[in-house]
Formats: sequence, structure tokens, C-alpha cells
Amino acid sequence: MLKAAICGGSGYAGGELIRLLSKHPFVRITAVTSERSAGKPVSDLFPHLNNHSNLVYEPLKKEKLLNRADLFFMALPHAESQEAVDFFFRNRKKIIDLSADYRLRSPEIYEEWYKASHKYKGTLRKAVYGLPELYRNKIGKSSLIANPGCYPTGAILGLYPALKNKLIDTDSIIIDSTSGTTGAGRKGETAFSYCEVNEGFRAYSVAVHRHTPEIEQELSAVANKNITVDFTPHLGPYDRGILSTIYARLKKNIETKKVLGTYKKLYQKEPFVRVLAEGKYPNVKNVRGSNLCDIGLTVNNRTNTLIIVTAIDNLMKGAAGQAVHNMNLMMGFKETTGIETIALFP
Amino acid sequence: MLKAAICGGSGYAGGELIRLLSKHPFVRITAVTSERSAGKPVSDLFPHLNNHSNLVYEPLKKEKLLNRADLFFMALPHAESQEAVDFFFRNRKKIIDLSADYRLRSPEIYEEWYKASHKYKGTLRKAVYGLPELYRNKIGKSSLIANPGCYPTGAILGLYPALKNKLIDTDSIIIDSTSGTTGAGRKGETAFSYCEVNEGFRAYSVAVHRHTPEIEQELSAVANKNITVDFTPHLGPYDRGILSTIYARLKKNIETKKVLGTYKKLYQKEPFVRVLAEGKYPNVKNVRGSNLCDIGLTVNNRTNTLIIVTAIDNLMKGAAGQAVHNMNLMMGFKETTGIETIALFP
Amino acid sequence: MLKAAICGGSGYAGGELIRLLSKHPFVRITAVTSERSAGKPVSDLFPHLNNHSNLVYEPLKKEKLLNRADLFFMALPHAESQEAVDFFFRNRKKIIDLSADYRLRSPEIYEEWYKASHKYKGTLRKAVYGLPELYRNKIGKSSLIANPGCYPTGAILGLYPALKNKLIDTDSIIIDSTSGTTGAGRKGETAFSYCEVNEGFRAYSVAVHRHTPEIEQELSAVANKNITVDFTPHLGPYDRGILSTIYARLKKNIETKKVLGTYKKLYQKEPFVRVLAEGKYPNVKNVRGSNLCDIGLTVNNRTNTLIIVTAIDNLMKGAAGQAVHNMNLMMGFKETTGIETIALFP
Amino acid sequence: MLKAAICGGSGYAGGELIRLLSKHPFVRITAVTSERSAGKPVSDLFPHLNNHSNLVYEPLKKEKLLNRADLFFMALPHAESQEAVDFFFRNRKKIIDLSADYRLRSPEIYEEWYKASHKYKGTLRKAVYGLPELYRNKIGKSSLIANPGCYPTGAILGLYPALKNKLIDTDSIIIDSTSGTTGAGRKGETAFSYCEVNEGFRAYSVAVHRHTPEIEQELSAVANKNITVDFTPHLGPYDRGILSTIYARLKKNIETKKVLGTYKKLYQKEPFVRVLAEGKYPNVKNVRGSNLCDIGLTVNNRTNTLIIVTAIDNLMKGAAGQAVHNMNLMMGFKETTGIETIALFP
Repeated sequence: MLKAAICGGSGYAGGELIRLLSKHPFVRITAVTSERSAGKPVSDLFPHLNNHSNLVYEPLKKEKLLNRADLFFMALPHAESQEAVDFFFRNRKKIIDLSADYRLRSPEIYEEWYKASHKYKGTLRKAVYGLPELYRNKIGKSSLIANPGCYPTGAILGLYPALKNKLIDTDSIIIDSTSGTTGAGRKGETAFSYCEVNEGFRAYSVAVHRHTPEIEQELSAVANKNITVDFTPHLGPYDRGILSTIYARLKKNIETKKVLGTYKKLYQKEPFVRVLAEGKYPNVKNVRGSNLCDIGLTVNNRTNTLIIVTAIDNLMKGAAGQAVHNMNLMMGFKETTGIETIALFP
Repeated sequence: MLKAAICGGSGYAGGELIRLLSKHPFVRITAVTSERSAGKPVSDLFPHLNNHSNLVYEPLKKEKLLNRADLFFMALPHAESQEAVDFFFRNRKKIIDLSADYRLRSPEIYEEWYKASHKYKGTLRKAVYGLPELYRNKIGKSSLIANPGCYPTGAILGLYPALKNKLIDTDSIIIDSTSGTTGAGRKGETAFSYCEVNEGFRAYSVAVHRHTPEIEQELSAVANKNITVDFTPHLGPYDRGILSTIYARLKKNIETKKVLGTYKKLYQKEPFVRVLAEGKYPNVKNVRGSNLCDIGLTVNNRTNTLIIVTAIDNLMKGAAGQAVHNMNLMMGFKETTGIETIALFP
Repeated sequence: MLKAAICGGSGYAGGELIRLLSKHPFVRITAVTSERSAGKPVSDLFPHLNNHSNLVYEPLKKEKLLNRADLFFMALPHAESQEAVDFFFRNRKKIIDLSADYRLRSPEIYEEWYKASHKYKGTLRKAVYGLPELYRNKIGKSSLIANPGCYPTGAILGLYPALKNKLIDTDSIIIDSTSGTTGAGRKGETAFSYCEVNEGFRAYSVAVHRHTPEIEQELSAVANKNITVDFTPHLGPYDRGILSTIYARLKKNIETKKVLGTYKKLYQKEPFVRVLAEGKYPNVKNVRGSNLCDIGLTVNNRTNTLIIVTAIDNLMKGAAGQAVHNMNLMMGFKETTGIETIALFP
Repeated sequence: MLKAAICGGSGYAGGELIRLLSKHPFVRITAVTSERSAGKPVSDLFPHLNNHSNLVYEPLKKEKLLNRADLFFMALPHAESQEAVDFFFRNRKKIIDLSADYRLRSPEIYEEWYKASHKYKGTLRKAVYGLPELYRNKIGKSSLIANPGCYPTGAILGLYPALKNKLIDTDSIIIDSTSGTTGAGRKGETAFSYCEVNEGFRAYSVAVHRHTPEIEQELSAVANKNITVDFTPHLGPYDRGILSTIYARLKKNIETKKVLGTYKKLYQKEPFVRVLAEGKYPNVKNVRGSNLCDIGLTVNNRTNTLIIVTAIDNLMKGAAGQAVHNMNLMMGFKETTGIETIALFP
């Protein structure tokens, strides 16, 4: 039985980790931390976990926690994660970091976008970007996983086959995404209160969202050249799910059917990617609560543009589900263990 | 491996049965019927089941189906279920009927409320009302289960301990319930289209809803006297969940704490009932996707009224989840098998 | 042109007052206060008012404001309103107080439910409860209006004809209400953040909500005897609107048609009450953005219960719209001026 | 008093026209047609119009209607409008056609996208595209207005200043839009039922939506060259509003501030366009129920892309509100009459 600790377990991703790990056959959660809720039962903050979890929040005291777990899920805010990750890593623990702190391989780019310096560059170099479809083998051998951001997961999986097969003009990529409101985290801010979000729809962080360099880093790695993208996130009036509609000019004319074939081939053994039939497009509703990424696409012959649409559940494939997937790979468990759930529809 | 067929598998309860049974370790679905969708893959109607189910809808031909399954889940519209249930029952199959056709023990009352005559009174007499908390033993020995209605499940579980312990005036019961829109079924009616339901809230079938006699039948059985109730359903702008707020005058003054004690005692071994702490009330959001019934209550000393609030997921504890629970009891499986899922929050 | 000031104009009711008064032909808003947002343009907090209002928030300095307006709308939190109301009243201004501070005629009951003492009992005695359907004449002659609470407005209008005509047992009244989330105010609290409210439904303040004594006060005045009620509010996942489903035992058997006749007669000249035809029930969606109260009802002969359902927009008839109605009456304007808007559907 | 008839008044745009015209000071609605609902009071289909409209639906009999109105609003389905429009036009009536039948100047393109031939090419040549910001003068002199589609309105207004000032590469335009569900019309289709749309988000008609040629026609007219665009509509889980996020490569580097200046200048006298301050972006919630188009924009220097975001209420500026605007222009009324309403927030 793997002993796992969750550092930062009072947010939505933390709650989702508790939900998943509570039913995982090979894992026992030994600690959940939260500074603000220390002393409170987990079920006080998450009444849906009532009867399922007897855990009580405690403050994050690294030394005290060290021997209580073999693997640490870090769900702390960005910049706050750096030091704790480094500590557990130096003490030979396994770590899956859900923050952005170890995702960007370049500390300079990290500092530019996150307005914080990276103090653990040595540890940063050891981190593996935890997108199993791209880095399955590396993940299996690593002790430190930087769990991908929610938007990057959907964007990268949507573009990976097209870039790998050199189908598109790498200067033309536009990623237009919409996230459910869980993406904003669990917090008491007027801007995310019910009546402000409900019946609304808006773009935010236009041209400046922090997931941009993460997307660019991974697309550049696939294409083996520097790629810059336009990425616009929107806030949608629903709980879970990210839909990304992606545009790129095709290098040469090619049929939808053929592009779909390329995608199906590349993803055919992937347990968590479903490439949809021609004419079908994803809906976040069809992946809610699951670890799946659905992909649909078409070629617009009038403009010679490839339009790819992907859908994920941002708390699952975009956060906690992918973290559990990474854990399964790191530990040598069957990789779908605990995350085979079918989407809850409707 | 139990072979199970689902008759009427294109609605929301049918889809939920497929979702649950696909992951049930002791069951294999051998047939799913739908007259309108015969020939179509299940995943055409339920894209979330893509990759999870290769089933194809077929028309309900009783004789052809008979030998292909040991247990039949019947999710047909009311009145349409009668004959097929009788057929499978006479042929010594196990049946769980999710329609209302075998719930009311009195054919007269059935005919009065459902405007259809009951043609299989002999079979009707064999049916057991499938509310495990009240009839666990009978269910285990029965071959024909009338799976309870969604509203009755929440209402009866809320009143059962109060009636059993003779705490309340049986002439004073008022049940005010709100259901998510899945309760209206999967259908193309303007009244249930998105823009009509969204941002709306309304009562319907005031004083005439068909679940009234079902609630009265079971409450009367518990109290051992005829009980008539006021029951008002409301349509809420959300997908899943029924909240019932129930009012009854107390026979004599009694503290909230003591009533809660009575409830906790009666339900202490129930795997799917959670009696909440004093001052806490249920939210449908905390049971969504689970088979749980949450119960909170208080005594209003100013009016001497007991106010009980219950929450269920109408597609789970109110339909498919309870049906699987009944199946587990009928087959001698561990009763929580396949329905231990934690609610999906948020 | 009437000069009006809005004290406490950064909440939803305040924003609604600005929206209504900006288009009112006989009124000019001369000041809007907010301590927290002092110095900010109103359109910063309410972008929908962009181009419609050039007002800038200022702190509430009573002496400075005194001569800038003839009528003061007070939309401050409960208990904070007392003193300012008294000040403006003593200085012979007209006041419409949207807080609860001057609604309860008994300071003792106010203190019991609001946990604050009432320091201006003399002024309190001069306040008129601003429900035009009950107190139109008094309102026209008063300088201090206590604008009714949102829940009380729908509850009282629903019961008024039944009580006035002595149709019901006054010991049996149960009011079960659901409010859209604007009722919780504009604030950054996790409990009212989008993902906590959306797809949820729950009761709150069960048996202890502060609108209870206000409802009881007015029902008692109509019936000319002390009335105690059960009142349970629920939080619904939508923006605007309160639906109240009200139960009361009939004194003697009477037909639905006849009760409806009584209601239609009493309300026939009311510009903002619509009594619906037999078999029709209100939906908050049909009154959204309007100042209307819709009423539907039926007699449940099986239990001898009168079931009345009312719907209002809590920010309009339940707050700002009713305040403007009161202003029109106080100032001798045509009473529907500025609030004749048809509901926005869908 | 202008006598106006509404042909096809049972859908959402029709209902909105009735709502607006009922309060318009210079108009009287003399007839509303609906084949399916002939004989029913308008308030049966639209209970929010109860007390506001005594109109009864009648079948569309052209000859009978001819002398009962001076101006005809045509809100019929596409292709069904052609003949009636031609009839009223030949009989010297004024017509505002909300269908697509007279929007595309080329009958060939109409036939290609709408799969129906255009039989009234002579009349088609007389139609003026009813976007006041582009064609105010022509509209004032015309008798036949083709009221723009909802998506084109937001897209064209977003691109007009950039194209007119030759800021962008006309081969690079991508329009990514999301519409609330009223855009799908009022109909009983499972795909638009509450539980299918709610908590979902999806693209549809990818690369093949019928508004594409309409957008292209108007952008081409502004740029004076043939423009082809990528246009992807999405269905959002809310009632009203279209947000369009538009991408185009800049011809040369230019500051956001300068582009905004261009937009503000071009739209400075427009009563229904609000260009937002730098760093602000529109939200459909801020224009709901109003006739406004909000526009925000930024230059992404990293990619040299201009990103423009526009928001409209699809039933107002995207349909009925714009139709009333056109009527005001045609009749010489003050152009904002009856459509100055402030958005309903929240």
C-alpha cells in the first residue's frame, strides 16, 4: 500500500485527489495539509466526502510529514510549491507537483511569466513534464513530475499529431479555449461569485495567460523549433471542463479523413484519448468526471485551415486524474487504476 | 457472471444503468432495447459511453430476449411495462421494474392515478417495493422488484424514522420537493428545452402528482394507518438531484438532538443513508453521482414542527443506483458493489 | 425633477436602483455612496451601466449629503441603516429604507432576531411598511418607508386575500420559498461562489430566518390575531426570483375557482399583481426584470389544503422596483412610472 | 401611430419583438402570425406578456394582412420568408426581414449555403443589409431591410474599423464565437433540451455555418476585396448573448492604444456601440436585454495579432432590437426609441 500525502488539499484539485485516492486500491492517504483549515475534518470543507474520509487537515510541516508518506501530491499555489518540492525531492521522495513551479524548463521564462524567481534550478532540471501521451517512459523512471496545466493538456494533445507529422504551418497556431469555473479555484472572490459568472461569458487574460509559455514549450519540443501561439482563455458558466478550438494553416491540402487517420494512429493505444469519427465534435459534458480527452477535427478547404477541437475535464485529465495517472506510471501500477470512471452524464 | 438485459435503455435512467453495469464486476449486459433507436450503437445516443460500451440497441422482442438474460431491468414508460414484466416473471426471470407499474399494491389506486388498468394483478401481488432500507429482506428473496419512484425515495426515507417512532401527527405531513431536470426524462419538448428551464423555477402537478399515492402507501405501511399527504414537486434549473423539505407537527415537544438520535440509530447500518450533524442540511450537490441519501432535520419550537430535509441523486438513489442495489440484494452480491462511488463535487 | 440619493449603492439592489432611476423621467440621482468603492465610477462596479451613468461613489457623510437630495434610498446592511435614516428623517427628508431596520414595529422583536438594539424608537413608530397592495394610502402620506423584505413580499401577497377573507386556519401556515442567488447579495464568499451554488439546491436558515417575524407581523395585522408560521428558504441556482409555495388548511371546503375569484377581486386594480388562471402556476422566469407578483393557487381536496404559489423578482418587486413604486406613491407620480418594464424572457 | 405586423411571432425573436413594440411609443402591433399556434393568445406561449398583450395568433394570410399594417416584421424560418416578403414589397409595404432570405446579395451564394433557390431576385436587389453602423443612410431610404444574422452582427462590428483602416491582413481572419442557447430557437429538440445543454460546451457547424458567407460579404464590402474567414460557433450554457473572439494578423506593428483610438473614433457617435477601455473585455452579461455591442481589443505583440472581443445580446442587437432600430431609421423616429433599455444585471 503506497502511502501518499496531499499538500494543499482544500482546493478543488485537492478535493478531487482525495476523492480519487480514497477509492484507489493501492494507495492510502496518510496526510492532507491546509494552513487555513488546519484542524478541520476534510468532510467539513467537502461534505460529499462525508463517510468516505476521516482525514483532518494539518499544517504543512515538511520535516514532520517526511516519513509519513512515500509520494507527495503538491497542490499548492504557484511559487509556494518550489521549496517544499525541492525538500521532498532531496529526501528521495516521489513528487507529483500540480503547481506550475516545475513545468517550465527555462527558469527565465518561468520568472518572466510568474513574476517569481526560481530558486531550485538543479531540482527543476530533474522534473519531467507529466503528460503521459508524450512522456510515458520518462515519467515511469522519474521521481519528480510536473503535472501539466489544464489548458496546456487539451491544447497539446490537440496539436501533437499535427505537429509530429508536420502537417501545419507552425507560425499560424491559434488556441481558443473555454474553461468551466472550477478552473478559477475555490475562493471567495466577487468576480467568481455565482451571480457574476452565471449567464455570463467572457474572455480573460487575453494574450497574457500564464499557460502560454507552457503550451509553447511543449509544442516547440514536438516540432523541434520555436513556436509562438495565440492563446485566449474564456470563462464559461459551468463547473467542469475545458474545450479548446484550435486553428492552424495546413502546409498543403489534405483531406479531413486523412488527418483523422493520423490522429487515430498516433493515439490508438492511449487509454485516455478518444479520437471522434468524422463530423463529430467533443462536448465537455461527455468527459465530465472522467480522465478522457476527446478530439474532433475538420479541414476547412475554403481557408486551408485545420480546426481541431478537444475536450477534457479540467479537474481530472487537467489536474487530479492526470496526477493519479502519473502516479500509476511512476509506481508501476496498471496505468488506468482508479481513473477508469465513465463520465457522469448528464 | 450475471447476464442482464435493459429494456428501455435510451432514457437517462437507462443510460445510467449502462454506465453502472458496465463497471459492475459481476454483471454483463447482454441486451439493451429501444424501439426508436433500434440498430444504433448505444454510444450514438450516449457519447460519454464511447469506448466503454459496444452495445447496439434492439427492439424489445420478449421471446427473443428471454434466454439471453437472467435479470431484466425494465426502464419503460409507465403502463408499457406491465405486460413485459409479467412475461419475464412467468418465465421465472428476475425483474427490476423502474416504471410505476408494479409499485402500487392496489390496482384501483394505480388505475385512478395512472389512468390505465392493471392487467396482471396476480403478478402485481408478487412484487416487492424495492426500498432496501425498509424491505431489505423481502428484496433478497424476491424475483420481482418495483423500483421506487424518485420523489418517494427521498420522502419516505425522510419520514420513516419519525413515523416508526410515532413522533409526528400523521395528518399534518407536507412534502415540498424540487427535482433537477433529468427527472423529466430525455425528450424533445419545448417546456423542457434549455431556455425555458434555465433561470426559471416553478411548481408543477400541484396536488396531483402521481408519486403521491406511492408515498402515501409506504408511509401508511410504516405508521399502520391511512396517511394522506400534501406533495408539491418543483422543477429546478440543474441536472440531477431531488431535495425534499418535509413538514410535520410533532405529537409532543422534543429536542432536535433527540430526534436526530432516533434517525441516526435507525439508519446507523445503512450504507447509503447519511444523517447529518445538528445544524447541517443536505445539498443535492453533495450526493450527485452517488447512491446516497443525505438527511438533516430540526425542530421548530415556535410552531412545534419537525422539518426534515433529504437529498438524493434522482438518477442514482432515485432510479438506477437503487436498481443496482436491489440487484445486489437479489443476487447475494455485496450490497454496495458497483455503487460505492463518491459524489462528483463540484 | 426629484433629487434622489442612494446610500449603499454597490450591492445588487443598489445597482438595480441606479438602473431604474437612470431611466425614470422625474428623478435625477445626485449621489451614490459606498465606503469601500468611494472614488470609483459606478460603471467600474457595474459595467452594464457604462454610458448610462457618470456617477462616482462617495463615502456616506450625512451632513454633506443632506442638502443634495430630497429623497434618500437607503440600501445599507441591517443595523447600519438605523442612524442615517433617523438623521435624514429628523431633517425632514423623505426616506425609503431597503434594510430591515424599520420594518418590525416591535423593537423587542427586532432585537431578538437581528441581535442589535434599536436606538431610534420614536422614528421607528413613524415608519410605514412599504407594501403598496396593503398600505397604499399610508405610503402616500408618509416620509419614511420601510421597504419590505424580498421573501415577505411574495409570502404576504400570497396569503393576504385568504386571510382577509378568513378562508384558512391561521395556525397551519407553511411557507416554503426558493430564492435566486442575488438574494445573498454581492459578495466574495466561497459559499456563494459559482461552483458551490451551481448544480446545487439546499435549504438554509431552517426555522431561524430573519424574515419570519416580518411575515408574521403583517399576516397578524391582516388577520387581526397573532400568527406564527413555518418559513423555510432555499437557495436556487439562478440569478433572480423568489418562488413561494404556501400551504394552509382551509377552514371549510371551498372550490379552487371560488378562491381564485376572491384573489382576483381583491387584486383586480393592482398594477403589479397577476392572478393566474386555474391550473396555471407562476415561474420566476416570467417576472424576471419586472415589478410583478404572479400568483397561482389550487385547493387540494384530499387534504383540505389551500396551496398558493407566488413569484416575484427579488431585486425588483422584492427590493428596488418596490422602492421606486413607493417613491412614486410618496411623490404623487403615476405609480407605475419607471417600473412598467415587461419581464425579460427568456 | 405606425401599424406593425409580426409574421412568425411564436419564436424567441418574435416574442422579443412583441415585448419591444408593446412599449414603443409610436407603434401599434396589429397582427401576429403563427401557423401552429393560430387561435391562441400570445400570452399562452409567452406568459411574461400576460397583461401586456391581448394579441391572438392568426395564420399568415398575405392578402388579409396587407391592409392591416404599414410595416411587416418577418420572423419566419429561412426560405419560408422569400415569397411573403416579395408580396408585401410589391404592395409597397415596408418590410424588415429577420430571416436570411434577403441578406446575401448573390443568389448563387444563397443557394449554395441555404440549399434553396431564390425566386425573387428582383426584390432581392432592392434589399438593404440592416446594420445601421454601416448602412444608416441607405436604411433610412429603403423599404426592404434584411436584418443581419446574430453572429454576423458581432463579427462585422468587431472587424469594421480594422478593415476600414487597413490594419489587418485580410487572409488571416478567424472568428471564434459562442452563443447562448436562445440562438438555437424555441423548439422541442432533444439536443437543445435542458439536460443536454446545461454543464456542456461544444462547437457546432464547424467550417460550415451559414452565417459565414454573410460575414464574408460584408467584410469584403468594407475591404473592397474578397475575404474568406474561418468562423466557428459554439453553444454556451446560458440564455442570451454572443461573444466573438476575433483574430487577425496586423499588417504592421501598432500599439493597442492606437487601435483602440481608431475604434473609438469610428464608433464615437454610435448609440449602440461601446468601445471599452484598454485592458477591459466584454461580457455577454453586461449587454443582456440591451441593444448594445461592447468591444474590447488588444494587440498581441508576441505574434503580431490583433485580438478583438465583441459581445451582443443575440435577441436584441442580434435580432429584434436591431430590427426596431432599423424601423426607427426607416420611419424617421429618433433612432434609439424603444431600445434604450439598460442591460439587466445580474
